[in-house]
Amino acid sequence: MNETPRANRLHIAIFGRRNAGKSSLINALTNQDIAVVSDVPGTTTDPVYKAMELLPLGPVVFIDTAGIDDEGELGALRVQRSIDVLNKADMVLLVMDSGTGISEYEMDLARRCREKKLPLLVVLNKADAHPVPTSFLEEVITRLETDPVLVSAKTHQGIGDLKIAIVRNAPSQWDDQTLVGDLVREGDTVVLVVPVDLAAPKGRLILPQVQTIRDILDHDAMAYVVKERELKASISTLNKKPDLVITDSQAFLKADADTPLDVPLTSFSILFARNKGDLATLVAGAKAIDELKPGDKVLLAEACSHHRMEDDIGKVKIPRWLRQSVGGDLDFQWCSGPRFPENIEEFKLIVHCGACTINRREMLSRIMRAQEAGVPIVNYGVCIAHIHGILQRALSPFPELQEVLKDN
Amino acid sequence: MNETPRANRLHIAIFGRRNAGKSSLINALTNQDIAVVSDVPGTTTDPVYKAMELLPLGPVVFIDTAGIDDEGELGALRVQRSIDVLNKADMVLLVMDSGTGISEYEMDLARRCREKKLPLLVVLNKADAHPVPTSFLEEVITRLETDPVLVSAKTHQGIGDLKIAIVRNAPSQWDDQTLVGDLVREGDTVVLVVPVDLAAPKGRLILPQVQTIRDILDHDAMAYVVKERELKASISTLNKKPDLVITDSQAFLKADADTPLDVPLTSFSILFARNKGDLATLVAGAKAIDELKPGDKVLLAEACSHHRMEDDIGKVKIPRWLRQSVGGDLDFQWCSGPRFPENIEEFKLIVHCGACTINRREMLSRIMRAQEAGVPIVNYGVCIAHIHGILQRALSPFPELQEVLKDN
Repeated sequence: MNETPRANRLHIAIFGRRNAGKSSLINALTNQDIAVVSDVPGTTTDPVYKAMELLPLGPVVFIDTAGIDDEGELGALRVQRSIDVLNKADMVLLVMDSGTGISEYEMDLARRCREKKLPLLVVLNKADAHPVPTSFLEEVITRLETDPVLVSAKTHQGIGDLKIAIVRNAPSQWDDQTLVGDLVREGDTVVLVVPVDLAAPKGRLILPQVQTIRDILDHDAMAYVVKERELKASISTLNKKPDLVITDSQAFLKADADTPLDVPLTSFSILFARNKGDLATLVAGAKAIDELKPGDKVLLAEACSHHRMEDDIGKVKIPRWLRQSVGGDLDFQWCSGPRFPENIEEFKLIVHCGACTINRREMLSRIMRAQEAGVPIVNYGVCIAHIHGILQRALSPFPELQEVLKDN
Repeated sequence: MNETPRANRLHIAIFGRRNAGKSSLINALTNQDIAVVSDVPGTTTDPVYKAMELLPLGPVVFIDTAGIDDEGELGALRVQRSIDVLNKADMVLLVMDSGTGISEYEMDLARRCREKKLPLLVVLNKADAHPVPTSFLEEVITRLETDPVLVSAKTHQGIGDLKIAIVRNAPSQWDDQTLVGDLVREGDTVVLVVPVDLAAPKGRLILPQVQTIRDILDHDAMAYVVKERELKASISTLNKKPDLVITDSQAFLKADADTPLDVPLTSFSILFARNKGDLATLVAGAKAIDELKPGDKVLLAEACSHHRMEDDIGKVKIPRWLRQSVGGDLDFQWCSGPRFPENIEEFKLIVHCGACTINRREMLSRIMRAQEAGVPIVNYGVCIAHIHGILQRALSPFPELQEVLKDN
């Protein structure tokens, strides 16, 4: 586990006094029965590393530590090993039983986290067993300087909120998802199809194109940048097929026609949807478009309140395309800014903007909020690709998601 | 001539009353005897287009018009044709004989130029024949709203200043020299060698790289962007040799080794030296480095006063390299900002910065100022390439300049 590059996995250290319920919390978060769960205090001894997928954030490592308040000779060694874990952690969950109160142990850990600038989430477990008094919540906020999350590992109450809190509080490098690095191998040739006649500023490339070229170079691959008119010519100059073709969505149909069927083809929109969120959930959201019926409530959500143009994508174009796709009118609502409306359960679909003004963690937390409410969510890029019938091919680098789109 | 794309040639319309000396001025500017020169007023009838190179600006068209003040039936037609020329002109030279004074004709032309936002240069010709009274200069400035340039087409006095004024006053699109458009043909493959481990901001490419990619696409060619480590691999994926390789200077030696000898290879520095100035003059300046002797005066000129770092390129590195090249100390002087020192004739060489904060017209006017004074001028990029022995190969797309570097 220590060999895994740190940048690829969020290391979440779980601290807590003996029997606060650390191991059962991990199980609740992951729905797996990996940690030994026991009611005997101090069952967990040396820190235990559990690598797993915390969807939709991605790979995490939970570090399950021994309770720091263990006493005795053996206890001191274990306490030191637990403290050492702070050097490897990207985030700390402090699991507390609200019945036990705040001791020097919790105060000490919160101080260490502040010193190391580690995000600290206080998790009040066993919220099912006894109601948490407001006075205690206020004491946590005042003395540990953080808003606690109330959960019950037993009933799973609040586990969704905790996952969202983990995503929101992840260090900022968790926004730096690679765009294509995991899709290319060293020495690969990636053809980028970049129309220059459409709104591209003179002498420049638009930022997503530059970021993609750079990411390809950063992963020891090669970027063959061409206009859509030259795509066919560029492929014919290569003595092997390109390993991947990435096109601007506006040139997708031409790129589709000119890219051999066995070459993976995708769009900048799809790559950025994946980069800014969770492509699997968004593709599932695209499928939900096919289930929409006239009169269904659809929420169009934008992260910022930008100036709307006459033919605004969220206000005019997407509603028009969705109506055509459904074959009747839909009950559209719009929201912009940091919050969804209260009643999102009522919607049959959320169509979210490309999230250019918010970071990955924020977009993921919105996706999770929709998932919690059981509402399919899709973003503009994936939605438009699906309505225009190009999503299936644009997912060709992600065959497992092509299956999602096909299934049931 | 009318078929030549306007953007490629600066169209300079020459106006003036009959016999002000328009045609002889064109001859003086071009050292050619193309226009019919005569002392009979009104020799030039219909506008005459003369395409030529006005070094170092490049291709221009002089439009030699009939005097607007011609009278009579035939005269009226010619006057209208002359006025029509204003619709094709990028700049207007109004040639005046200071002895004749300002009439309604000059006032009318100046007004038309202001309306059309055409740059107007008032040229007071025959400055050799009679001294121009200060009162008349002031009248030109006040009534025609422009600083006049004093010349004698006969003795060539002031012609250098006029050329500099033409360059400085050219419309801003004359800064938009293509970077590589004239070096590539439709369908060409250009390999760009872009190191990413050196000071390049995370997730970005530096602007010169982006501009070059865009210029390649704008000219229907294809840009294969690779790190220096992948250059050899990229060439081996192509089933024909690349048509051009452009490398970051820092990777030049590796690019030199990995690019087949019959493939033109240059650097971003050389392309930008050409884009921002006059490569032929700068290469001649590089040759002058070989002639430097210990004790010679060298001017290091920077367009802006930037914050100097400890190992500043202009203050420390280039002087060190020049001393090593000469094998002794040199008498360095530095200047920054918009002006050269008064005494530039004393210098054996001017080494100018890359001109990133000034435009092409300004850099060209500085190059011309050095040429007027008979002082070789080179820029940082060309200077460094020459000192490090890579200039010859970096000029491989410009075989005529390779000859300049070899000659005498």
